[in-house]
Amino acid sequence: MSLAPWRSPLARALHQNRSLAYARYLQLATVRADNRPANRTVVFRGFLENADQLKFVVDARSEKIDQIAHQPWAEACWYFPNSREQFRLTGSLTLVGVDCTDSALQQTRISTWQELSDAARLQFAWPHPGKPRADADAFKPLPLDANEPLSDFCLLLLEPVQVDHLELRGDPQNRCLYCRNGEQGWSTEAVNP
Amino acid sequence: MSLAPWRSPLARALHQNRSLAYARYLQLATVRADNRPANRTVVFRGFLENADQLKFVVDARSEKIDQIAHQPWAEACWYFPNSREQFRLTGSLTLVGVDCTDSALQQTRISTWQELSDAARLQFAWPHPGKPRADADAFKPLPLDANEPLSDFCLLLLEPVQVDHLELRGDPQNRCLYCRNGEQGWSTEAVNP
Repeated sequence: MSLAPWRSPLARALHQNRSLAYARYLQLATVRADNRPANRTVVFRGFLENADQLKFVVDARSEKIDQIAHQPWAEACWYFPNSREQFRLTGSLTLVGVDCTDSALQQTRISTWQELSDAARLQFAWPHPGKPRADADAFKPLPLDANEPLSDFCLLLLEPVQVDHLELRGDPQNRCLYCRNGEQGWSTEAVNP
Repeated sequence: MSLAPWRSPLARALHQNRSLAYARYLQLATVRADNRPANRTVVFRGFLENADQLKFVVDARSEKIDQIAHQPWAEACWYFPNSREQFRLTGSLTLVGVDCTDSALQQTRISTWQELSDAARLQFAWPHPGKPRADADAFKPLPLDANEPLSDFCLLLLEPVQVDHLELRGDPQNRCLYCRNGEQGWSTEAVNP
């Protein structure tokens, strides 16, 4: 397959900001069951192989699981400090948990676990997120299997259908809107910032 | 009035990250009329005087105006790179436009305009955001009145009712949840990260 046209400016931004670890952090907005928005920082874990879907990891015990079941639509906002540009990626989320029967996605879930740092893996063994603070002992390192994911470990995929790219450095600023039109086709339009 | 208890850790984060201009950038999530989320970077413009409401500026022609009219609830996600901490601020938005009849808020709208840089003010004279790209001439500087806001200039206020503060630096991480209980009272609870 050919990559979506927004992949090239996004790859350039990742390269130009590679000195900043937090340039791989972005903010993912979802909608709660009461139709109020939720928004949190997530870490970009690369793209699904041969696809335009962004990978993240999430804990099956986190609130966003219910939010995604209620409304799979999301918008990620990604600001790159060095190059002063923003990508807004709008699309639907797919959750790949321990029960996912798609073998290719399940294999990607497992390989994503294997690629995590020990510290990142350990968080999935911590006490239930958001519950009253547990004793320090509950956070003590456990011997974790680096090959086999814990059951609460989920892969999360975002498949954009619209990408809004804003470059603050231009004079005036440049802004480009990419929209998916049906199967694999994308339109590209320069719009006012 | 006394400040909300989350103001102190937020003031500390702003101080510890003051070397980074973009530490005043945060991501504001709202909900569209079709119940899908929207998310974009906004610039923190300080607090409303004697209040716990965060100030932003927005263009009356931007899409978020309709979103706020449909659903005033929002969640801001604010990541501080130097101190490695995140604040999630959940609350309702109030838009203060040219027609606002509250004289104190209208005065704050005017003073916020006066405090902007020339470059920031100029953006409110640019062609309609999101429309097909206009000619370069349409972006040429105009003589703008630094005292009197353009009619499309709006002040936007976020009044949090819940603040979720996560410190990644702890071992394990620290997370504290602040919830407003009725009039001016706040509860504070340590929760699992």
